[in-house]
Formats: sequence, C-alpha cells, structure tokens
Amino acid sequence: MKVVILGAGNLATRLSHEMHRKGMRIAQVFSQTETSAKTLAKRLGAMPITDLSAVDTDADLYIFAVKDSILESVLQQMNTTSGLWVHTAGSIPVELLEQYHDRCGVLYPLQSFSKTREVDFSVIPVFIEAQHAEDLKMLKKISGALTERVVELTSAKRKKLHLAAVFANNFANHMYAQAASILEDEGLKFDYLVPLIDETASKIHEMHPIDAQTGPAIRYDESVIEKHIQMLTDQDSRDIYAIVSKSIHKLSQKKDE
Amino acid sequence: MKVVILGAGNLATRLSHEMHRKGMRIAQVFSQTETSAKTLAKRLGAMPITDLSAVDTDADLYIFAVKDSILESVLQQMNTTSGLWVHTAGSIPVELLEQYHDRCGVLYPLQSFSKTREVDFSVIPVFIEAQHAEDLKMLKKISGALTERVVELTSAKRKKLHLAAVFANNFANHMYAQAASILEDEGLKFDYLVPLIDETASKIHEMHPIDAQTGPAIRYDESVIEKHIQMLTDQDSRDIYAIVSKSIHKLSQKKDE
Repeated sequence: MKVVILGAGNLATRLSHEMHRKGMRIAQVFSQTETSAKTLAKRLGAMPITDLSAVDTDADLYIFAVKDSILESVLQQMNTTSGLWVHTAGSIPVELLEQYHDRCGVLYPLQSFSKTREVDFSVIPVFIEAQHAEDLKMLKKISGALTERVVELTSAKRKKLHLAAVFANNFANHMYAQAASILEDEGLKFDYLVPLIDETASKIHEMHPIDAQTGPAIRYDESVIEKHIQMLTDQDSRDIYAIVSKSIHKLSQKKDE
Repeated sequence: MKVVILGAGNLATRLSHEMHRKGMRIAQVFSQTETSAKTLAKRLGAMPITDLSAVDTDADLYIFAVKDSILESVLQQMNTTSGLWVHTAGSIPVELLEQYHDRCGVLYPLQSFSKTREVDFSVIPVFIEAQHAEDLKMLKKISGALTERVVELTSAKRKKLHLAAVFANNFANHMYAQAASILEDEGLKFDYLVPLIDETASKIHEMHPIDAQTGPAIRYDESVIEKHIQMLTDQDSRDIYAIVSKSIHKLSQKKDE
C-alpha cells in the first residue's frame, strides 16, 4: 500500500500518522507551504513536495485532505495516475472527483482534529463511498485498519451528517465562547465551567439530548429569560439567547406531545 | 452538624448524598411530593416531611434546594429557627432570604445534576455567600468538605455566572439536540457524533474556546453556510444557524484584531 497525502493540515496530519502507525507507507506529502510539507513528511519518513507535477503516478491511494476552497485547483493540476483518489470532506459530493479521475471515492473521518492533539482513532466513525465495487472494498480494508467504526454513506447523507456536525461541534463550541465572554466581563475564570461542560457532554453517552435538557428555557420561564437577555451587552448574544430559548421550549413541548 | 434539606430534586439529591457521605447528619428531607421525600430520606437515614410546620427548629443548617418558582412560598411557611438558611440557586440574590430570616447565605454548586448520575463532587466549584462573617466561615468549612473549589462570590456576579452556565450547558446541549434531529431525519444514528462531542468538550481543558473554533463560520464561507441553511427544514434551526454563524465570524475577527 503506497499512499500520497495531499495536504498537511489538521486532518492530513492525524490521518497520515494513524495510517503510518498501522503500517501503511506514506510515500509523499504535498503542501503549498514548504514548511508544512517538510514537517509532516519528516515524521512519516515521506518525501515532501510543493509542486503537484512531482506527485508519484504509481501510488495505490491518493488522499485529498486540503481546504475545500483549493481542492478543485489541486485536482486540476494532478498528474494522470491509476490509483484510487479519495477526498476527506464532509460537504463535497464524490462526483467532483469523477470529473478528473475514474477511480474515486470518499474517506470522511468525523472528528475535529488538531495537529498536536492525539486522538483515539479507533472510536472515530469513518464514512466511506466509492464509485467502483473493488475500490469500496479497498476503502473498507484501509478504514477498518484505522477504526472499528466504518460506515458506507452516500454523498447526500454525508452532507447532512456534516451539517449535524457543525451544530454538535462548531456551534456547541461557540456556546462555550459566549459563556467565556460573559465570565471575562466579570473577571471570572472560564475554568469554573469546565466540570459543567464535561458533564453536559458526558450525559449524551447515556441520554438523548432532548431528555438531558434542563434550565430556564425548558419551562419558558419568562422572568429569568428576560433578565438574562437584559444582562447581555452584545446584540448577537441577545439574539442567540432569545432564539435558542424559544427553540428549546418548542422542542420540549414537541417531545411531551 | 444537623442539616435539613428542603427539596428532593436533582440538586437536593446529589448535594445531600455528598454531605451524608462526608459525615454530616441530614435530619429531615422536605418535599411536597411524599414519594420524593421518602425516597431521598430513606437513603440518608433522615425523616421525610411534606408539611413545613414539621421542620425541626434546632438544626444548624437549612438548605433550600427547591424550584425557583416555589422558593418564596416555602420560605413564607418556614418555622422560626436560629440556624443558617442557604439557598442553592444561580439567579436568586441572597437578599430574598433576608426578608424571612436573619442568618442567611448561598451555597451554589455549579453543575448540572441528575438524581441517578454519580458525579465527582470534589472538582465542582461551589460558590458561597453569607450575610454574617461567622456564617461565611461555616459555609467555607461545609463546602470545603465537599469540594476543593470553594469560591466566595457576590449575588451580582453569581447571576452572571448562572447566565454563562446557561450558554455552556443548556444551549450547548440544544446544539446536540439540533444535530440529533438532523441525523434522525436521515435515519442516521446520533451515536456517530459522540466522539466529536467528547473532543469538542475536551479541547477547552487546554484551549480557550475562541482558539478551538473550526468550521465554515470562522471564514464565513457563504457558499457552505447558504447550502446548510437550505438543508434545514425548521425555521428556528435556520435562524439559529444564521445568527450563530454570524456571531462566530464576528468573534474570530475580533480575536484577530
């Protein structure tokens, strides 16, 4: 198994490390940024490249893990190869790759990666898709070496999954950021909230989030809600408070019906 | 130390269990609901009561852990006692108790409790306040037996802390609920998101949530944002998506300034 990684960001870094750890050979790492290519390639025993014309044409697998915004331009500059091309993005249909290459697919690990944070890859769901049966088989094998949770998924469903992930990750994190900003205005430490954040995230291992909900919005306690909104100095925060409270209340009523 | 617990809900249950475990004597448990009073009292070796006229008048500490909406009516029906009265609510000023009793204060554990979920009380921040110096000393001692994190805080600052907790807990949980609803519409399992939710919550142990933010909203990628909003069928969800994305983008720009 000879692999070329296109990209050297968070996802490219964690994914290629895990593949390397599992004995797959990463031959090349491409990045537009020379330092990034070199840093990652060094740790994988791979060749760093910054020019797409230098991409090996005889690899088994090409993993596109670049930013969505430059993916198409990278595809356009690719050499002709016979191996399988996969992208790693939540919201891009597999058909985009088909315009440039016959054997193509998707390998989408559902996690928020950081270059420097180790993650337990074995519990991360990896969603795969391929245009040809034998490529799907190969993707199953590769992903199965990385995680216990390999799921075949269409591009249409993957788009929805990505949307859900934006709520569960980016938007939940923004709620932490809003909380941090309220505390900082009072000279209070964000650290006070860490056990609460841990518990809220832990609860959904056992309960559906609708059943785990507590707080003033559930009962639509207008006196608390109104006072809270008045305490917020930023208009966006006020809007978020109002609309999220309304939505929590509606969802809890729907549940009780 | 003789303690009377007014309330038998989530907070009352977890707090009284922890006090009991630390050797404090819970003499009585009051609840309007007989079953609740009996269930909790039995596990604490306490006397269940449903009538406030039966409250012992010689306890050292009375803990009001009832719903905000009935707190005042409970206070009105209380016997005259000499011990310290504390409430456990985030958004209620200590002054409310002062109208009914001279020795009063607050003991606010910042956590989302469930009757049946054990929590590690030692890491939970407990915020205390008292009207008299000797009562504050007593609260420090009691709280110090329960947790390593005892913090003195005014009612005004506690209100803001409670507001921040609503964002970090109730609103973050609602983002999970929104994600669950998107997945369920596609017949996808919420379980796929659990490692992502865990990682998002874990990250803020090391990073400020503004620095931990990722996703389409940071760069205000309008093509993804627009497509995501179109995929949402519920108007509240669309409004949440739009306003939270705008707010994430603004916050990230502010950070870069």
